[in-house]
Amino acid sequence: MADDMTAVLRWADEPGGGPAVVLLDQTRLPAHEEERWCRDVPALVRAIRELAVRGAPVLGVAGAYGVALAAARGDDVEAAAAELAEARPTAVNLRYGVERARAAWRAAGRAGGDATGTALAAARELHAEDARASTAMAGHGLELLTRLLPAREAGWRLLTHCNTGALVSGGEGTALAVVRAAHTAGRLERLWIDETRPLLQGARLTTWEAARWGLPHTLLADNAAGSLFAAGAVDAVLIGADRVSADGSVANKVGSYPLAVLAHHHGVPFVVVAPISTVDLDTARGADITIEQRGAEEVTGSGDGRHAPAGVAVHNPAFDVTPPDLVSALVTEGGVAPPSEVRRLAAGYDGPRATELREADGMMKA
Amino acid sequence: MADDMTAVLRWADEPGGGPAVVLLDQTRLPAHEEERWCRDVPALVRAIRELAVRGAPVLGVAGAYGVALAAARGDDVEAAAAELAEARPTAVNLRYGVERARAAWRAAGRAGGDATGTALAAARELHAEDARASTAMAGHGLELLTRLLPAREAGWRLLTHCNTGALVSGGEGTALAVVRAAHTAGRLERLWIDETRPLLQGARLTTWEAARWGLPHTLLADNAAGSLFAAGAVDAVLIGADRVSADGSVANKVGSYPLAVLAHHHGVPFVVVAPISTVDLDTARGADITIEQRGAEEVTGSGDGRHAPAGVAVHNPAFDVTPPDLVSALVTEGGVAPPSEVRRLAAGYDGPRATELREADGMMKA
Repeated sequence: MADDMTAVLRWADEPGGGPAVVLLDQTRLPAHEEERWCRDVPALVRAIRELAVRGAPVLGVAGAYGVALAAARGDDVEAAAAELAEARPTAVNLRYGVERARAAWRAAGRAGGDATGTALAAARELHAEDARASTAMAGHGLELLTRLLPAREAGWRLLTHCNTGALVSGGEGTALAVVRAAHTAGRLERLWIDETRPLLQGARLTTWEAARWGLPHTLLADNAAGSLFAAGAVDAVLIGADRVSADGSVANKVGSYPLAVLAHHHGVPFVVVAPISTVDLDTARGADITIEQRGAEEVTGSGDGRHAPAGVAVHNPAFDVTPPDLVSALVTEGGVAPPSEVRRLAAGYDGPRATELREADGMMKA
Repeated sequence: MADDMTAVLRWADEPGGGPAVVLLDQTRLPAHEEERWCRDVPALVRAIRELAVRGAPVLGVAGAYGVALAAARGDDVEAAAAELAEARPTAVNLRYGVERARAAWRAAGRAGGDATGTALAAARELHAEDARASTAMAGHGLELLTRLLPAREAGWRLLTHCNTGALVSGGEGTALAVVRAAHTAGRLERLWIDETRPLLQGARLTTWEAARWGLPHTLLADNAAGSLFAAGAVDAVLIGADRVSADGSVANKVGSYPLAVLAHHHGVPFVVVAPISTVDLDTARGADITIEQRGAEEVTGSGDGRHAPAGVAVHNPAFDVTPPDLVSALVTEGGVAPPSEVRRLAAGYDGPRATELREADGMMKA
């Protein structure tokens, strides 16, 4: 959690308040900073589906707290974990967070210990790790940019898509944490922010975070990115990821793949910043990643805001997949590697996440 | 004008009604089919700037009627023509239509004839020519697709951007007229319609036209086009143009260039359909084309519909430029050519537009 804003996500257990996962409702930003109290797992699943909480890393944290919530309420923890893990299909971090808290709960239960307390401790630990991972990614990312990009006196012009800041993380985020580090180092001329249709996470959330952090930034319709590349006004693209398959393919917010193709066409580095928990060695290739299809009204608008004719057919995938040959580098808390070496990166990193990822993978298969 | 819808644009001179250019207000579609009466040139210029009438070919027709309107009212025709020609900077057809009616008005005036009647006749002639050009482009375009694309039993999957149908033309339009011809020939499996942020001409207008014409169609956020290419679900891209420079560069609705890069990356034909009046031999290269910058609120929303933080900086170009090497073919009423041969195409075509284009070019320089 960064600065003084309402916590993106916190555990509440005040007397009388009962246990709850309390979210900063991201569907109400930037106009309203409102908390959303999830007092049971169905409420938390709804909040996840409605994107009140969103962004791959924090979804893992939310999933872990959700398991703790079910345990604290005395609900069926196995059923709750299964429901949470399936709340959204693409971000593997969600499954990872759920699995990690469930594994802790199971182990404590088997040992006759405090299963609820252990699940909550696992969630808190993941939350804290996520904050540390943000800091590490920001450092590795800045180092990478310094190595990849020619020095510009005015600083770099970085382009990002969707939202990857403090709102998606226990810390300052993924790609946006790198941008902030560049700004702090005096190396950011401008952050170009794709509005990110259909849900406008760039326009609503990234602009809001950029303003809070004092980053020089400009918003654009996704369609306008092309001419920025053509004008030589983009030095690098930085995005997050919702899942990285074993071959280094990157599933991320829809519209990331077109940016990767544009970056490739213009010889501009395309950098993916994501914690190691985003890597899913169980998914062999990009084509195997399940892509969430979302409702038509996200595209057509609804009620008075409806702009498309009634009954129109809509294709609304929430994510797309960028093949490894279009990704310049993957930045994780464990270091930087080309995406083709994601296996080595995950295996070679000794942090708790990589180890537990391998364990969790084993458990999911079991 | 196609079918039974309200005329996209018509001249009205009923007794008591005074002379007027009457538009189908495209800002109110698809929910409302409303006429907008422009009784003087400032009203018409406002309608053009607000995009109540839009699309390169019909802007030329509107400009020509605007000159006739000024003449019929006894206004300063030279001043009105200058104001109309500058109402929007990118579509060269607007300047062409204005110039053509003004040249007719001048010539009749010099000869002591009915200058007003001659200007109106020139506008009506351009309007009728535009309808004929649509039909010719549809035929040439269908022939080109048949030549370029492998036959598919289910038909082709064509992708388009912005709106290029009956709403932009005296006839059935440009790119969308080709799509309709493919459908009529039983060769259209599906039309993918980019919503076309920020003004959503695809979502609002192309869906509306596709439904009226019975084309099988699906709407998508612009960001979702990338994964359609990756999935092999796009057989060709068809778009219109607002200006084609002498080197064959194509200025069109923002977001066209990213589609061209995607099409190139995937070996998919990228076809531009535009009347010869779109060619501007006075503009040597794509980089010389003036790109209209529009207001921030088109991107941020406004009033209750505002979704981005107050005061955010916005980059909102209305168009982008696709270089000739990314354009598979340019389809005009005079035939099909690679964009690098646009000079030859304009010079070799004996239709009235090409001839008068050269004359108008001369006049504008004078």
